[in-house]
Amino acid sequence: MSALTVVKTDGQARLAVLHTGHGPVETPVFMPVGTQGTVKGILQRDLKEMGVRMVLANAYHLYLRPGSTLVKDMGGIQRFAGWDGAVLTDSGGYQIFSLGVLRKIGEEGVTFQSHIDGSKHFLSPERIVEVQEHIGADVCMCLDECVAYPSSHEYTAASVERTTNWARRSKEVKDGSSLLFGIVQGGMYADLRHRSTEALVGLDFDGYALGGFSVGEPKSVMWKMVDTVMGDLPAQKPRYLMGLGFPEDIVEGVRKGIDMFDCVIPTRHARNGNLFTKTGRINIKHAKYSRDSSPIDISCGCYTCTHFSRAYLRHLFVARELTSYYLNTVHNLFFYAALLARMRAAIGEGRFEEFYGDFKSEQEGGEAQDGSRICDG
Amino acid sequence: MSALTVVKTDGQARLAVLHTGHGPVETPVFMPVGTQGTVKGILQRDLKEMGVRMVLANAYHLYLRPGSTLVKDMGGIQRFAGWDGAVLTDSGGYQIFSLGVLRKIGEEGVTFQSHIDGSKHFLSPERIVEVQEHIGADVCMCLDECVAYPSSHEYTAASVERTTNWARRSKEVKDGSSLLFGIVQGGMYADLRHRSTEALVGLDFDGYALGGFSVGEPKSVMWKMVDTVMGDLPAQKPRYLMGLGFPEDIVEGVRKGIDMFDCVIPTRHARNGNLFTKTGRINIKHAKYSRDSSPIDISCGCYTCTHFSRAYLRHLFVARELTSYYLNTVHNLFFYAALLARMRAAIGEGRFEEFYGDFKSEQEGGEAQDGSRICDG
Repeated sequence: MSALTVVKTDGQARLAVLHTGHGPVETPVFMPVGTQGTVKGILQRDLKEMGVRMVLANAYHLYLRPGSTLVKDMGGIQRFAGWDGAVLTDSGGYQIFSLGVLRKIGEEGVTFQSHIDGSKHFLSPERIVEVQEHIGADVCMCLDECVAYPSSHEYTAASVERTTNWARRSKEVKDGSSLLFGIVQGGMYADLRHRSTEALVGLDFDGYALGGFSVGEPKSVMWKMVDTVMGDLPAQKPRYLMGLGFPEDIVEGVRKGIDMFDCVIPTRHARNGNLFTKTGRINIKHAKYSRDSSPIDISCGCYTCTHFSRAYLRHLFVARELTSYYLNTVHNLFFYAALLARMRAAIGEGRFEEFYGDFKSEQEGGEAQDGSRICDG
Repeated sequence: MSALTVVKTDGQARLAVLHTGHGPVETPVFMPVGTQGTVKGILQRDLKEMGVRMVLANAYHLYLRPGSTLVKDMGGIQRFAGWDGAVLTDSGGYQIFSLGVLRKIGEEGVTFQSHIDGSKHFLSPERIVEVQEHIGADVCMCLDECVAYPSSHEYTAASVERTTNWARRSKEVKDGSSLLFGIVQGGMYADLRHRSTEALVGLDFDGYALGGFSVGEPKSVMWKMVDTVMGDLPAQKPRYLMGLGFPEDIVEGVRKGIDMFDCVIPTRHARNGNLFTKTGRINIKHAKYSRDSSPIDISCGCYTCTHFSRAYLRHLFVARELTSYYLNTVHNLFFYAALLARMRAAIGEGRFEEFYGDFKSEQEGGEAQDGSRICDG
């Protein structure tokens, strides 16, 4: 059986169901990031309450701490973390790439030093699959190389070949019932993106991720690469755009036919006081909110917006109270969950373009309360 | 009407109801500390769920930030903080005392520098009452001087006179329907404790607090002072032992007839990984919990204990995840709330001494899993 059942398409956008070992997940879906086995600043019950059915965890982080064998011995990530929804584990390619001088990439795999204690580690593509199986992920990702931007065509071509070889080796050792996704690379070269996609599709993965973005490239270049790849992907397989993004990016991605997203933006921004509203982002620390009795977003139904004013949230943020991070995180993740639900409804009713137009005019028409965009990696 | 209705006495221990502007509160009660208008690391709804009906906030902190006038303009602390239970505000005497060289105590009041920005402030006893009325406290506390330990009999006698004068001045300006408590001082001198109590009782406050403890004195000396005061206090008025303590201290206090308690111990300890169990305290960071699949306390019904293992909680603590502080805080405050509920039930059923014996043998019989006591101010 295919991992994905497409329920309805509307333009390129599609409403579907991803079948995981921990239940069906409606797509398009945004997965909150739970790097270390917990989504930062929010509890499992709150995620469940807001309709979140799938989160991302990081194989690299859990391998180092508390150890993937420990997670296995404790009954797998769901049991360990008290989470009964689905879990996708990132292979750690991006994290290891981010270690810079602390890592070395070879044909056999990656050698790196732990960011926690400096200990040395070697991980092969095969071992990374095993680590994710120990963790008990419902969706595993192949180890890939995320190249820097800019990188030469020559280096990127060699890297695509390596990533393809790693993907083949990953598939060969893949055991059990969880899903395995290949990750399309190829930097900002259309020919290499095509080459990567074709090779991975030939290997028949359960799903395909688009990786190697958010490395400093202009957004227009990224979208060009996404368009390049989308045409090559089989319609009946899930498509996952890794590490994106702002609400407007996710809306754009859904419009292009992407099914899955993850990003630290809603959680990290929450901890920095950056809160999403229908009409743009606000930073709650601003003095102008000190006596503002309105909620973050009048149209939002989250616990934070239905119980607390901007004035109180500003006070908590300025006083650096833990509850500030918590309440802000609840709001931002609810905002994302509600946005995705709105898009799924629009696709289901065949009015995605109408939604898209409304979304655009809300964003443009609304007063950008902070005056400017907030950038965050 | 008296602020307190005594429902039943059992030895010195008593079951009663404190009547506040935000509903009745069953006593003995433990008030979690919400210094800056939020209990650190836990949300209002979680407090409510575990039966908490009254919290403490700090007039000194709220006066400085966000400002008591702002809290007033936002509709008072309950509305500002989204909390529909009762609030007692500490006057700030203890906090200002703790500022050391940054404060100067005179007959008229206290001059001090803000711990936030170094700005200079003068607060008289009258102004402190006004600040608490602006905040909208259900129970206000008179400004008092908390003397250091040890202090001379001469200094302490003069200080008691000052605290008494301040109490008289506070009562004279007290307006509105909230309750006002006097604070008994007198250091570790029985004659001065008697003198302070008699003077305050003569002023007919709504309730009486026992202050000036946890300043470094031996616990036996503290209890002797508590015994000294208790006999002087009117039976129909609430009695509040400020800033205490560990579960065993609270049980001891209830046995002596104390009605109200507050302390940062459960919340602060939670953030340090120190967790309460029926058989003693454990520190969750210990390596021996890394594969422990049992909850913190098998007999505990809190969200943390019913959903997460010690192994997971240890991982979160070691990884410094925000959710660690949150889950630990939920457990410790639930533990305190359950302990107080157990005591109220025992008094109601006339079996407090039986409870007391059981509590003692649980604490002694249980394996102190960390091997030693954890001390915390």
